[in-house]
Amino acid sequence: MVTIERICTFSLRVIAILTTFSATIVMITSHERVRLNEVSYEAKYSDMPTFKFFVIANAIVCIYGLLVLCLPSKSLLWGLIVALDMVLTMLLTSSISAALAIGQVEKNGNSSAGWLPVCGQVPKFCDQITGALAVSSIGVIIYMLLILYAIHNALDPLLVHNS
Amino acid sequence: MVTIERICTFSLRVIAILTTFSATIVMITSHERVRLNEVSYEAKYSDMPTFKFFVIANAIVCIYGLLVLCLPSKSLLWGLIVALDMVLTMLLTSSISAALAIGQVEKNGNSSAGWLPVCGQVPKFCDQITGALAVSSIGVIIYMLLILYAIHNALDPLLVHNS
Repeated sequence: MVTIERICTFSLRVIAILTTFSATIVMITSHERVRLNEVSYEAKYSDMPTFKFFVIANAIVCIYGLLVLCLPSKSLLWGLIVALDMVLTMLLTSSISAALAIGQVEKNGNSSAGWLPVCGQVPKFCDQITGALAVSSIGVIIYMLLILYAIHNALDPLLVHNS
Repeated sequence: MVTIERICTFSLRVIAILTTFSATIVMITSHERVRLNEVSYEAKYSDMPTFKFFVIANAIVCIYGLLVLCLPSKSLLWGLIVALDMVLTMLLTSSISAALAIGQVEKNGNSSAGWLPVCGQVPKFCDQITGALAVSSIGVIIYMLLILYAIHNALDPLLVHNS
């Protein structure tokens, strides 16, 4: 039972590393150059502070995931992992939300603020941003599952073993 | 010792309710009307889907906080509270990040996307958004402290009691 549990959490952590790594790469490589009425326009992730934050957050969580896998099974640090998982999941969630908010304005614009949508001009760029956000969201879901499972084990919700 | 602990967590939960409630009210009441070259321009929170999400998230967390305080101390649901705290803190964090991303564009604009800043025209509106974000952030910090404390108690990080 313990072995199945270990294999599951190990696999989930590996998938989380792969998703955050992919999200970082997909976001970094997102750029598109178009010519609009003799004017060249290039959209790239580094134009938006939010997308830079997304790249940094995903890279940090990816490196953290690798470090956790390298941790010896007898290490005293394992007791801290749930807390660290939580802090880094917060970081990842906040980077995805921020990027999603900007992505939504890029797609639909905002008439009251006078911001025009840009996705009509650079659809490939927007698709890549959407892809990065979707992949990174899988990473957040995995970390949430890991944390909820750890809390479930530690705190015995609904006191099932006591009743 | 248990009593001091209870008073502390109770007080923190009350402060969290007050912060999320204030953030909701400050955001809802944020609007400013100005006349720019004979054109009337009104900035209000409901123009931005992100700010609406911020209001909804803060209202949900505020109501959740009230429900937790009403929970009888013998309730079986207490075992679930840490997990629920975590999910709702995620919701709050994500709403703050999204609102912060939009607020940043409102303040500085984005030259590459051609989005002009609006805070120059409606400074009072922007100050109120900033206030709501700051107050709500205090709520997130409180919930994170509560969760980290619960994890600390349950999981015994660094195995201090075993050594």
